[in-house]
Amino acid sequence: MDVRALVFDVFGTVVDWHTGVTREALRLLGPDVDGPGLATAWRGQYYPAMNRVRRGELPWTSLDALHRAALDELLPGFGAGAADDATRAELVLAWHRLDPWPDSVAGLTRLREHRPIATLSNGNVSLLVDMARHGGLPWDAVLSAELFGHYKPDAEVYDGAARLLGLDPAQVLMVAAHVDDLAAARSRGLRTAYVHRPQEAGPAGPPPPATDPAADLNVGSLTELADLLAAGR
Amino acid sequence: MDVRALVFDVFGTVVDWHTGVTREALRLLGPDVDGPGLATAWRGQYYPAMNRVRRGELPWTSLDALHRAALDELLPGFGAGAADDATRAELVLAWHRLDPWPDSVAGLTRLREHRPIATLSNGNVSLLVDMARHGGLPWDAVLSAELFGHYKPDAEVYDGAARLLGLDPAQVLMVAAHVDDLAAARSRGLRTAYVHRPQEAGPAGPPPPATDPAADLNVGSLTELADLLAAGR
Repeated sequence: MDVRALVFDVFGTVVDWHTGVTREALRLLGPDVDGPGLATAWRGQYYPAMNRVRRGELPWTSLDALHRAALDELLPGFGAGAADDATRAELVLAWHRLDPWPDSVAGLTRLREHRPIATLSNGNVSLLVDMARHGGLPWDAVLSAELFGHYKPDAEVYDGAARLLGLDPAQVLMVAAHVDDLAAARSRGLRTAYVHRPQEAGPAGPPPPATDPAADLNVGSLTELADLLAAGR
Repeated sequence: MDVRALVFDVFGTVVDWHTGVTREALRLLGPDVDGPGLATAWRGQYYPAMNRVRRGELPWTSLDALHRAALDELLPGFGAGAADDATRAELVLAWHRLDPWPDSVAGLTRLREHRPIATLSNGNVSLLVDMARHGGLPWDAVLSAELFGHYKPDAEVYDGAARLLGLDPAQVLMVAAHVDDLAAARSRGLRTAYVHRPQEAGPAGPPPPATDPAADLNVGSLTELADLLAAGR
């Protein structure tokens, strides 16, 4: 492999969305709400709307706006339909302040010594900037679906990332904890690294596969990825 | 002013293009070439091509490509028409490795403690990423004309920066050493700060105005800008 830059999925790969959203739901909606359940349902709920954008049935809509619409649909079912507008707006910002996994900052810091590192996320740019400042994520560039007007796994996102980085797709390594994201990246010619994040969906969530046999690399953390790339350099 | 984020012109404002391009021209073309003259002519030469892109007479063309075309036109007049393709390609990368002004890293580091900071440059994304890594510029985001398919001073660039940052234009402070860039930013509702860089065009270049009376702030360095914003906070 001739990897010249790394791009990262962020939700679940670099940051722990389930814990962070659960914590903010409990803080903002009160201790009686099912925080873990709301986090899981919320994460599940934005996919259908995102796919409507992908199919062209909705105009481009930022992830913040998709999150808000999904939240508004979900709150009554969680006994929190009385939450006011300010509370809902604040809760949407939970996704801006997710904490990194324990290995993320150390791994990214080592990885970027040798190659540029960038996000490649469905999160909007301002969300990703807030998250990086919150968690100390040392990105060289914030690349987002928003820049391309297409959500992953649309080809435009992977193609666009390589183009903006000035590289051939095969010189870009996509790092993600989701096999579908990596499969789409591979179909556009990118190299891929799978990160196993067993706690991504929370303690009660479905366990992700331990490995992605189709990926170029399989690791359990971003520090392990830094080790692997250092060894192969 | 209610400034929530700062965006920066880079060539001349944050980095010293005249010294850097002169140095690389002498290194790559030999000591007999008029390095300062080539730097000045090169910087002047890409404007007409950029304006052809702005008028729609040329399709979108990255700054790297505009730099290369301008260089190819200029080299024979500087007695360097024999330079081979690899030398020319390497010289174009001079713009990726420009050094920051002495106050830039310290000023940006202080400024970003309180608000996100981003580039807003006509340089392409990969150029800006290389430059940041070369000089240690701590950007929270790399915003570029390339993301919008329009070069400054087109309105789309300033509008797009505010949109991607999730802010109203009046919450964004544009920082530049060029009054035309600031005038365009103001016309789109951004706040503006003028940085006086007397050496921007080199020792023999035309001196820039000492101040921009129309700007919200006038400073002589990015550390002075950090002082001003800290005092007003």
